[in-house]
Amino acid sequence: MAAAASSSISSATPPRTFPISRITSSKLLPHYQLHLQRRFTQNPNISISFPSNSTHKPPLIVCSSSSSGEPLRRPRPDYIPNRIPDPNYVRIFDTTLRDGEQSPGATLTSKEKIDIARQLSKLGVDIIEAGFPAASKDDFEAVKTIAKEVGNEVDGDGYVPVICGLSRCNENDIRTAWEAVKYAKRARIHTFIATSGIHMEYKLRKSKEEVVEIARSMVKFARSLGCDDVEFSPEDAGRSDREFLYHILGEVIKAGATTLNIPDTVGITLPSEFGKLIADIKANTAGIDDVIISTHCQNDLGLSTANTLAGAYAGARQLEVTINGIGERAGNASLEEVVMAIKCRGEHILGGLYTGINPRHITMTSKMVEEYTGLQVQPHKAIVGANAFAHESGIHQDGMLKHKSTYEIISPEDIGLERSNDAGIVLGKLSGRHALKDRLTELGYDLNDEQLSTIFWRFKAVAETKKRVTDADLIALVSDEVFQPEIVWKLADLQVACGTLGLSTATVKLFSADGEEHVACSVGSGPVDAGYKAVDLIVKERVELLEYSLIAVTEGIDAIATTRVLIRGESDHTSTHALTGEPFQRTFSGSGAGMDIVVSSVKAYIGALNKMLALKQ
Amino acid sequence: MAAAASSSISSATPPRTFPISRITSSKLLPHYQLHLQRRFTQNPNISISFPSNSTHKPPLIVCSSSSSGEPLRRPRPDYIPNRIPDPNYVRIFDTTLRDGEQSPGATLTSKEKIDIARQLSKLGVDIIEAGFPAASKDDFEAVKTIAKEVGNEVDGDGYVPVICGLSRCNENDIRTAWEAVKYAKRARIHTFIATSGIHMEYKLRKSKEEVVEIARSMVKFARSLGCDDVEFSPEDAGRSDREFLYHILGEVIKAGATTLNIPDTVGITLPSEFGKLIADIKANTAGIDDVIISTHCQNDLGLSTANTLAGAYAGARQLEVTINGIGERAGNASLEEVVMAIKCRGEHILGGLYTGINPRHITMTSKMVEEYTGLQVQPHKAIVGANAFAHESGIHQDGMLKHKSTYEIISPEDIGLERSNDAGIVLGKLSGRHALKDRLTELGYDLNDEQLSTIFWRFKAVAETKKRVTDADLIALVSDEVFQPEIVWKLADLQVACGTLGLSTATVKLFSADGEEHVACSVGSGPVDAGYKAVDLIVKERVELLEYSLIAVTEGIDAIATTRVLIRGESDHTSTHALTGEPFQRTFSGSGAGMDIVVSSVKAYIGALNKMLALKQ
Repeated sequence: MAAAASSSISSATPPRTFPISRITSSKLLPHYQLHLQRRFTQNPNISISFPSNSTHKPPLIVCSSSSSGEPLRRPRPDYIPNRIPDPNYVRIFDTTLRDGEQSPGATLTSKEKIDIARQLSKLGVDIIEAGFPAASKDDFEAVKTIAKEVGNEVDGDGYVPVICGLSRCNENDIRTAWEAVKYAKRARIHTFIATSGIHMEYKLRKSKEEVVEIARSMVKFARSLGCDDVEFSPEDAGRSDREFLYHILGEVIKAGATTLNIPDTVGITLPSEFGKLIADIKANTAGIDDVIISTHCQNDLGLSTANTLAGAYAGARQLEVTINGIGERAGNASLEEVVMAIKCRGEHILGGLYTGINPRHITMTSKMVEEYTGLQVQPHKAIVGANAFAHESGIHQDGMLKHKSTYEIISPEDIGLERSNDAGIVLGKLSGRHALKDRLTELGYDLNDEQLSTIFWRFKAVAETKKRVTDADLIALVSDEVFQPEIVWKLADLQVACGTLGLSTATVKLFSADGEEHVACSVGSGPVDAGYKAVDLIVKERVELLEYSLIAVTEGIDAIATTRVLIRGESDHTSTHALTGEPFQRTFSGSGAGMDIVVSSVKAYIGALNKMLALKQ
Repeated sequence: MAAAASSSISSATPPRTFPISRITSSKLLPHYQLHLQRRFTQNPNISISFPSNSTHKPPLIVCSSSSSGEPLRRPRPDYIPNRIPDPNYVRIFDTTLRDGEQSPGATLTSKEKIDIARQLSKLGVDIIEAGFPAASKDDFEAVKTIAKEVGNEVDGDGYVPVICGLSRCNENDIRTAWEAVKYAKRARIHTFIATSGIHMEYKLRKSKEEVVEIARSMVKFARSLGCDDVEFSPEDAGRSDREFLYHILGEVIKAGATTLNIPDTVGITLPSEFGKLIADIKANTAGIDDVIISTHCQNDLGLSTANTLAGAYAGARQLEVTINGIGERAGNASLEEVVMAIKCRGEHILGGLYTGINPRHITMTSKMVEEYTGLQVQPHKAIVGANAFAHESGIHQDGMLKHKSTYEIISPEDIGLERSNDAGIVLGKLSGRHALKDRLTELGYDLNDEQLSTIFWRFKAVAETKKRVTDADLIALVSDEVFQPEIVWKLADLQVACGTLGLSTATVKLFSADGEEHVACSVGSGPVDAGYKAVDLIVKERVELLEYSLIAVTEGIDAIATTRVLIRGESDHTSTHALTGEPFQRTFSGSGAGMDIVVSSVKAYIGALNKMLALKQ
């Protein structure tokens, strides 16, 4: 069952259906079928279909009016920068790697960025904003690699994501962005300048006329480099003077912009307001019908998803979002919420809108971003939170069955999540390398032989201690091995004594990159402090520990726990902030997993140090 | 500065203002004042005022049109169950203790419930849904105690929260609810029955006519007990047949209901739809003008805040919310988002709406609920997330100054949050008991002498190790001591050895309630596993560890870390689920704080065991 579910991930597109999977056939007496049919077909949003005309398969609630049976997922229209052949198609622009990565502590290495970009491409994102190339050499290189690799992987349907680079409105930024993205099959430059009173006065110290002239000439400059796909954003549009906004947008359209992105930079608008802003721009801007309108909503009042949908309803056909809704302050509209809302209600409530996203990859993408950025989602996060499909544990089984069908609007399988009790295959100490490899493939991991060997060895060690090795255990082990930065320092051994009597003591043995062995011991205020101080004695990097957290990924006292740390080094790891233009210090996250939390804590610390040292080199 | 800010928490009501506190006076040249004034007054939503007509104090952005200078917080109108004297006043109904508490793992003890209820009263919540009294004896007692205590604490302005108890539509539930809430000065019974096709068919197995008859007679029954404040909810209203909905609502109004709550039980509606649902009910239900319409929005698509606001705009004058947005699955609309959106935009965008909430208590309430329920909020949670007011650390100071003024719509101080670098007072090893007490009072904790002594002793121990003892350290220590369940077992000593060589070993010494000493040792797969197994050898309760997490609450390697665990015991801890009517097993959370994570992990486990044993007795 699990195998079937997973194999369909990579091949078929799921129908837009909501199986009442928990109502077993025996409970579905024929008159209930009739009643169900009557109830739901009275609601114009929902129809119901009975597979193979029998009561032995669960009925499907089809979340749309289409009852003709044709596949509901439409083909993705051809990509033309300033125009979408199908007026109902909405492009999804993911800025996890740019806006999301600028969240405190979310710094990603180039390798992590490429992994995420590849996963976004699997998900079917139309445009990947891969970074802000002028921020630092490392940012530039990451965007360039994504453009070269992910930006050239065309799938069977001709789909390949647009790779986009952000730039301020100056020649250097724009040239740098182009140098990074130009290798992609579809390359876009996204440039922005603030247009609200407060921003023009305080940040830019420029007049309206100066701002218009800069915007116009910089869009022209971007086009002159050979880029035919140029996005322009009037920053803080939500607080900008309307007439000025229409004017500057009209001017950049004349200058060659193909997408106009309207950001609610401070997250202050309500959905009705934001929808009206988009509608007003559509109605009053000269030349607007020749370009795509886009939304970019911050979440400061918790309204980013609603604002984004209001924008789409009012005519925006590109929506800027991030995975898990990460981003500065309260983050951005989250891809999973926006996409699932359009999937569930686009047909009727939003005038027939649809996206090209394959939601089956949402869960894996969410986990990868959580893992790499260290920004954990809360249990009650919509769509991807741990509780999103859970109810109070231990609920009576029959109640659970009724419950699911009556309270669930999205099936977990739709977003690639398997219920833990559906797992089907459980690995144990007798499972071989082949079974492990199969399961990992089903979970979406493509490992090379060396990685598989390491995981297999660790899997065996866990299986010796635990009766059942669950998917969550496996994912934690893979994260610990595969989602790790390049190794500079490696933990060989650790020995700790601690307790309420104080004088926690740790001894560590590390290998340096050249294989040399280093041993040090230290006391500390607790076992982790002692371990970290011992590591410091060897690595000799001055860092500050900003955050430390630990979470058990599996149930049971013998669970595997994942530790995450966030550190900040000396001031040589600086980058330029896209919005403020100010330099800021990068921070680095590290994670470690294992059954001994002190060991995993020390591994996480070494991981963060390695990430920092890798960027330094 | 910190002292001044805190003292105002307990007394004054803050004006609806947003200080540009980061622009120092020297930067505010007179012509900038003029420009600022011009910019902002062009935006009808925002005006600007300059305190004492000088450049030496920061200007205030006033988030409303009122520039006359009168206090913007209006007095709370008198409480009449079915009518609000001021048509713009919106009641806030908090269901953290009922809907929130039914989240997986969020089980609260009676003491915790009373603490939260008292905090909700401080916050100014109009109605506190204190629980579902028919669920279990413990639930009944908790609601009764809240009604007796919090429901009788009338403040100087005559404010006292309504205490509400939930009940299904049957005589036993309603009588039980009344027996629990009747001690409150203002007591309310909230009864509900499902009205959607799928729910009536599958959950109730009743016809429309039967459902109407039950609702009508049960509302009458509630009134007959002497309760003049009866709320009725048609469960799954969002998916109910419209005409049927108008009919049943009209019938319960005739039967004596004073508030009609419209839940979007499965969180499937979009804001425009939900607003229309409320407007339609208002337009088509007989007698609707004599009752209050309420909203209750689940968050499955991330739209609960927007839906709630759309409901208010369409005429709802009671909004059901929870602190931090907790609740089953993706939770409910969160109080802080709804309240702050109304505070920021109610005046203009929502037709002049306002609430009686004092947002200064939001941060403390959020922390208390997070602590007691064990449901942590994500860093990018709007309003109360750790990053909500943070930007990438280490940003250049001047950039930070400009940044704050240009990117922040709510000041952290508005919600009772102090920026860490504003703390002003930092305690150290030389600080005395008096300084500690003062700081704790400023932070909102009222401790008795015994509690203070314990905290002081632990504070000294921390101060010996750390240079600066921050507010976060203090809050963690207070949580560890004060937010603990009744003590059944107490940790005396713990000693651990562990490391990469395996064979983690722990020895624990516990005191039982009668003061007897018990010692046991065990090996485990890690130090925590070893510690828990040693505790199990003494306590002899069969429990399952469901979740384990640990987070450092303060920066630095010598930080204090808080551990949280969630356990489930044998099947004797059952309760009745409000919506399904099915029994379910309770789960129990525990937390421990300290500089040694192994010690705090064992303390958390003992805390959870104590919580479970306390409910058992």
